[in-house]
Amino acid sequence: MPVLGNGVDISTMLGNVNALLSAVKFDSKGLVPVIAQDRATGVVRMLAWANAEALRATVQSGLATFWSRSRNELWEKGKTSGNSMPVHELRLDCDGDAILYIVDANGPSCHTNATSCFFRSVTANGLAVDDGPAPAAAKV
Amino acid sequence: MPVLGNGVDISTMLGNVNALLSAVKFDSKGLVPVIAQDRATGVVRMLAWANAEALRATVQSGLATFWSRSRNELWEKGKTSGNSMPVHELRLDCDGDAILYIVDANGPSCHTNATSCFFRSVTANGLAVDDGPAPAAAKV
Repeated sequence: MPVLGNGVDISTMLGNVNALLSAVKFDSKGLVPVIAQDRATGVVRMLAWANAEALRATVQSGLATFWSRSRNELWEKGKTSGNSMPVHELRLDCDGDAILYIVDANGPSCHTNATSCFFRSVTANGLAVDDGPAPAAAKV
Repeated sequence: MPVLGNGVDISTMLGNVNALLSAVKFDSKGLVPVIAQDRATGVVRMLAWANAEALRATVQSGLATFWSRSRNELWEKGKTSGNSMPVHELRLDCDGDAILYIVDANGPSCHTNATSCFFRSVTANGLAVDDGPAPAAAKV
């Protein structure tokens, strides 16, 4: 059963987002860090920030929505690029100050066109650049 | 080849941590959010914070180290609980303001004893509690 988006009555989900919002500890700027992870591969695609409005929009639309700190506006991922992130699960951590969106990511997630924003790693030869972490499924 | 820890000359890695640190954009408190993800399962275990000292200690020891905002001290994960996180990869995102530790996690990662700190999810019935996200390997 999809947790968000199709198949769940929207009024039910909106009630639940109120339960979620009351459990979130936003920082002094009203923001909380959000990890977006691809469901199929386990790859962490990006870390961005959400305010209450962004979390509400995510639950309402089923699409990963953030608060852009640089543009100071609501940011539905993929609205301009097409690389949207339908949200399969929305999770909250133990102390309520971090969020995990588990998403079915469309296309690459980084503005550089890399699959993951985490495309730089510390190696014996310094910082190396690739396309992001290897899928978890390939590692087990 | 392990990127961090055994097998890599520590003086090489310390040079690389300087390269890393110069690429990190710490916030006004000198901190950067760090995602810790289990390498074998792809499960995001926790989100915590690091300062430069914590990143340096992580590279030097090969063990995930954070800055505890509540205790205001360096925090080597598992030093008291035993649930350490040897770091396999240390990754930096595109704009340098988020870090990803890919770890071989020992034991559960949450202080509640859940495998992942992200053990609460928004469902049609409100916030549900489990042990954390399902392994990515099981989802593909």
